[in-house]
Amino acid sequence: MSAVFLELEKLSLGARRPLMDVLDGVAWNTSGLITAIAQQYDSREVLMLAWMNRAALQETLITRRVCYWSRTRQALWRKGETSGHQQTLIEARLDCDGDAVLLLVDQIGPACHTGRPNCFYNAVRDEFIEVIASPPAITPAHGATA
Amino acid sequence: MSAVFLELEKLSLGARRPLMDVLDGVAWNTSGLITAIAQQYDSREVLMLAWMNRAALQETLITRRVCYWSRTRQALWRKGETSGHQQTLIEARLDCDGDAVLLLVDQIGPACHTGRPNCFYNAVRDEFIEVIASPPAITPAHGATA
Repeated sequence: MSAVFLELEKLSLGARRPLMDVLDGVAWNTSGLITAIAQQYDSREVLMLAWMNRAALQETLITRRVCYWSRTRQALWRKGETSGHQQTLIEARLDCDGDAVLLLVDQIGPACHTGRPNCFYNAVRDEFIEVIASPPAITPAHGATA
Repeated sequence: MSAVFLELEKLSLGARRPLMDVLDGVAWNTSGLITAIAQQYDSREVLMLAWMNRAALQETLITRRVCYWSRTRQALWRKGETSGHQQTLIEARLDCDGDAVLLLVDQIGPACHTGRPNCFYNAVRDEFIEVIASPPAITPAHGATA
């Protein structure tokens, strides 16, 4: 863990450190990424998990529109750019060891590319996976960008 | 995405597939891992992000005590084994493309190794990171296992 995150561990409620110093200490992985959890800010529903590089995180903080890094396309992924299902950033929170970020967002429409409200619809129940949310009546074309 | 997750995309509420077939199609990364988000089942607080291999996930499903894979120690990490801060599994939900799992849990004590209730206490506010939860009065020894 970087020195700045070790320092943050010991700080009390309300203490502040410059954002850029902290971003320098983030535990970007070998691909330059951290995991990002999107949570609907009011209902607290966990919407999806994706990835961010520093450029995606900084763009998100500036524009307040959530931008991820698409590992498939190897490009910035401005969520909702084609689907309209954008996420407005309410607050971003880094975790204790600086390798994950929780994004409190306001989601427009469904978060999942399948058209479901969130991506976590495959529940383990008994010895089965049970689908706990239906896709919308008109299924989006496979491979559509969410 | 594996065939079984492509099939699950199209299934409606209540449809089931055998768990073992689905686990065979999970998008384990090159280290054999998926990301795991722990969420307190009743308050919906996001507690932490960690990693699971297939053995950790299967142990968790059988014992109902959450077990992760520690990338640092390269070993199964039975959460709370030393600290007592265990997580009882309420439900596990895989995401649409099978590379993340949401764990609805009942957390005993703090989830974070710093003694805070959750790991996401470094909030971005203006041009700063602001600590939004204090560590407990007696700081746990650094490097303590959560």
